[in-house]
Amino acid sequence: MNQYALLHIPDSRYCFATGPKEVVIRLRTSKEDDLKVSIVYASKYEIANMQQEEEMTKYCEDALYRFYETKLSLTDVRLAYVFKISEGSNSWYFSEDGITKDYDFSEAFYNFFQLPYININDLMPTVDWMRRAVFYQIFVDRFYIGDHDKDMSYVNMKWGDIPTPKCFAGGDLAGISKKLDYLKMLGINAIYLTPVFRSISNHKYDISDYKEIDPEFGTKEELVDLVKKAHSMGIRIVLDAVFNHCSMDSPQFKDVMKKGRDSEYFNWFIIDGDKPDIKNVNYECFASCGYMPKLNTANAGVQGFLLDIAEYWIREADIDGWRLDVSDEVSHEFWRLFRKRVKSVKKDCVIIGENWHDAYSYLLGDQYDSIMNYAFTKACLDYFANDRFNATDMADKCNSNLMRNKDQVNQMMLNLLDSHDTHRFFSEVGKDVKKLIAAIALNVMYPGAPCIYYGTEILMEGGYDPDCRRCFDWDESHWNKDAWKEISRVLHLKEHKALQYGECSIISVNDMLVVERSYKDEKITLFVNMTDKAQRVPAGVGKLIAGLEINGVIEKKGYGIYLSGKEMR
Amino acid sequence: MNQYALLHIPDSRYCFATGPKEVVIRLRTSKEDDLKVSIVYASKYEIANMQQEEEMTKYCEDALYRFYETKLSLTDVRLAYVFKISEGSNSWYFSEDGITKDYDFSEAFYNFFQLPYININDLMPTVDWMRRAVFYQIFVDRFYIGDHDKDMSYVNMKWGDIPTPKCFAGGDLAGISKKLDYLKMLGINAIYLTPVFRSISNHKYDISDYKEIDPEFGTKEELVDLVKKAHSMGIRIVLDAVFNHCSMDSPQFKDVMKKGRDSEYFNWFIIDGDKPDIKNVNYECFASCGYMPKLNTANAGVQGFLLDIAEYWIREADIDGWRLDVSDEVSHEFWRLFRKRVKSVKKDCVIIGENWHDAYSYLLGDQYDSIMNYAFTKACLDYFANDRFNATDMADKCNSNLMRNKDQVNQMMLNLLDSHDTHRFFSEVGKDVKKLIAAIALNVMYPGAPCIYYGTEILMEGGYDPDCRRCFDWDESHWNKDAWKEISRVLHLKEHKALQYGECSIISVNDMLVVERSYKDEKITLFVNMTDKAQRVPAGVGKLIAGLEINGVIEKKGYGIYLSGKEMR
Repeated sequence: MNQYALLHIPDSRYCFATGPKEVVIRLRTSKEDDLKVSIVYASKYEIANMQQEEEMTKYCEDALYRFYETKLSLTDVRLAYVFKISEGSNSWYFSEDGITKDYDFSEAFYNFFQLPYININDLMPTVDWMRRAVFYQIFVDRFYIGDHDKDMSYVNMKWGDIPTPKCFAGGDLAGISKKLDYLKMLGINAIYLTPVFRSISNHKYDISDYKEIDPEFGTKEELVDLVKKAHSMGIRIVLDAVFNHCSMDSPQFKDVMKKGRDSEYFNWFIIDGDKPDIKNVNYECFASCGYMPKLNTANAGVQGFLLDIAEYWIREADIDGWRLDVSDEVSHEFWRLFRKRVKSVKKDCVIIGENWHDAYSYLLGDQYDSIMNYAFTKACLDYFANDRFNATDMADKCNSNLMRNKDQVNQMMLNLLDSHDTHRFFSEVGKDVKKLIAAIALNVMYPGAPCIYYGTEILMEGGYDPDCRRCFDWDESHWNKDAWKEISRVLHLKEHKALQYGECSIISVNDMLVVERSYKDEKITLFVNMTDKAQRVPAGVGKLIAGLEINGVIEKKGYGIYLSGKEMR
Repeated sequence: MNQYALLHIPDSRYCFATGPKEVVIRLRTSKEDDLKVSIVYASKYEIANMQQEEEMTKYCEDALYRFYETKLSLTDVRLAYVFKISEGSNSWYFSEDGITKDYDFSEAFYNFFQLPYININDLMPTVDWMRRAVFYQIFVDRFYIGDHDKDMSYVNMKWGDIPTPKCFAGGDLAGISKKLDYLKMLGINAIYLTPVFRSISNHKYDISDYKEIDPEFGTKEELVDLVKKAHSMGIRIVLDAVFNHCSMDSPQFKDVMKKGRDSEYFNWFIIDGDKPDIKNVNYECFASCGYMPKLNTANAGVQGFLLDIAEYWIREADIDGWRLDVSDEVSHEFWRLFRKRVKSVKKDCVIIGENWHDAYSYLLGDQYDSIMNYAFTKACLDYFANDRFNATDMADKCNSNLMRNKDQVNQMMLNLLDSHDTHRFFSEVGKDVKKLIAAIALNVMYPGAPCIYYGTEILMEGGYDPDCRRCFDWDESHWNKDAWKEISRVLHLKEHKALQYGECSIISVNDMLVVERSYKDEKITLFVNMTDKAQRVPAGVGKLIAGLEINGVIEKKGYGIYLSGKEMR
């Protein structure tokens, strides 16, 4: 046994409550070892006298490790435990003190692992609608012009022209309202809008007034109406909270520009000097963009200001979630306050951070619910676009990413192939329609909520910003209708209970990536074949419900989704 | 290279800020591998274009792993990094995606490790006085009777008799006040008192009134005077916060007993039914002690009540810290509120949890500062008392325990050999004076604050509770004066800057445990010889300042502490 590979961290992604009396325990071992793993446990105050033992399941594997998992239902929620690991005729105990041949339970109080108590205020619930959510991300200026009566003088490009960093096309909230039927038909039931508050840019990530809808996009009433109409159709709306920084045109920054240290807002920013110096940027800002001064979320005034905004739009417009821009650079303390405020106003309002990296320290249950899952994006690029991963590598990576977080977080992840901050995935796969749809199929099968970047379904292309922000082409004669229908078919699969609540297994079989979700009697299985030859699907996987299979084989760069058991929607 | 052994977790004990512009990075590798490790880093927004590289230091080793560490001073606090690991002529990069032969920095934004930003409200400062603190834990009823005029009718044992669970000896706050000179002489500069609030038991862990000093122990004025006098002598006072549970005699629980669900306090407790049933204990309590009903710290009323108490005694008596009883069973959310309240009233008020196990999830900077370090206790038992550890095992374990937490936490740890909840350490080592003092020497050398359980210095004996709670024998003719003086000499060594701020190295040399602390020009080195034969000390370690060395050798079960360089106190 490679004992160097063993990892267990109490009160973490390796041991977490999923209910008032329910705990998930994970143990990591080397994938090379053939082990039998049990958990030996009891109430903390009883373990010296008696213990229960339960064999753990091989849950998944990544490139190096195997993860064992078990879910315990407890009566006494003061859990003490150690692991018993067997390899052939050898066996060991694994406790806080590492591996030992024997274990003296009468002294266990010094070194058992523990989940000392499940306090209900520390529980992290799953925002349940995220399990069945299919998101659509809209860059508002480029989606659809709904209001032709507004002042259009700001529009400086023809709809459909290749965008530049400073161009305006005229898309608005009214346009989104008018296209809700379209989105519903596509299979969408949640929309994430890039920022809609007052700002001089087309992306509006530099906000000058957080309580006003930018007039280019519409009015507060139009937002309220959009949400109301969306809700009536079963569609949720998530807005973008740009709380890391604001615009240099915000009244607060302007006041500091004018009064320097005498401004009551001086400490709202982090300034090295007596006054902001726009030219030399002597203040903290987003990236190196001086026009986006960083807000100091250690300041009580800033905290109050931002929390008020967070609450305001939930109360005024009944939005269903906040996506948090550059959230990893904002203080943990602020996100704790933010979560408390948001959840106190609307319990199932989802909080989705923008952390491109392992965001575990933000996803413990006291800050966000979820993140934009760019680790998923990266894996998809390596598998579908760059040929860096074979099916086994991809299965390994998918599992590795799942093991980063508690199960609740995985169920709320926003899984995306691309966004306004990346190249378009369709361009990344060399405009290969089959690869694109196979990737969407994986996204729909993967635990969490798939998020489709606007226009993906009409095969929109584009490189990095601003090219990934082109105008949606509403001329249907330009569309690949077959692709549209297949994407829509795949997105609608999320209505299956198995893809909402099902256990997930990700492995490789015959050089194909195989993702299986099962819930009660229903089982849905995805086969992705990114090899250069047709691959045979094992017998008995069920009825083909999406993708293409011919005589039991899936063509190269193809995929198939199979249903077996009783269909549950 | 054993890549299974590699471990790095961003924003954790493996990567943490120690100042507004300063970060410590740790990487774990296998101890068996001979590697060269560097960190390759840059500002997150620059890393695609240019990186800095810095070799990391071999910091320490435990039984399996080697830990590399480096401290970076940053200008831009948005840190992105990967590791470069070389073994002979091979080298690899280690990122969020694991080990790769090459690394493309132009795509690093997807998988570098990061500390996204150092927000000052997320910083965990060290309570600086903890670095030089030498604690003395007092079980108040058994230390000294200062007030002979009080109503002594509750006293039911003769001072010095072997205690039973329900006996009262008469010790009080006035007694402690009168013995401050004694403690000062011994080398003590901080006192941790077991609970002093109103309670019918001798230990007072079942509190009925948190705002009243138990009349057996004295009055509020006497506590105020004790703290005032202690402060005038440079001694700090830490009280015991029993917030996990209260007494069944508390007015709140009594109200619930009477009114059941109609009581405004019903939800202060966790009751399975309409009313508490004392006989069948249908409510959550401490251990299986029905007379100690658990407080529901998810309840806003309970939170307000306890936070008020936390603040009250800081304001009224100017106490210097709270030790938190059964803190691991109390909610994280409550401790976050507790920390905010306590630190807002008195910034350097220390918060010390009672977690017997790895308490990492409570020690991130948002909850406690420190814990009673029972992992240190266990290691000392295995080395000094039970012969389970040789010097190498002990060095490994000491290092392993240090690597559990951020450096700030280590500097605030309350390191103890025994307490009111264990056997006395002197009894555990078979009344071997040399072993006891060698263990105290290690405790003084180890990062953090040593805590001496009352009477250790006069070689008090005792088994498990209540035997470890005997009366202090003030008849000096019974004392081992040489032992007392040596213990006092060792405790006073904590006045050296090297033992407060010094880097710490723990290894084994010639079957001896060697602990070295160095700060600027001062170096202090401890050699502990727990073998059965004399061991030679390497040349040039400095001047012997405690312990015993004869002709360059340390006798069996002996120790020596050496000073070299310029003495700094």
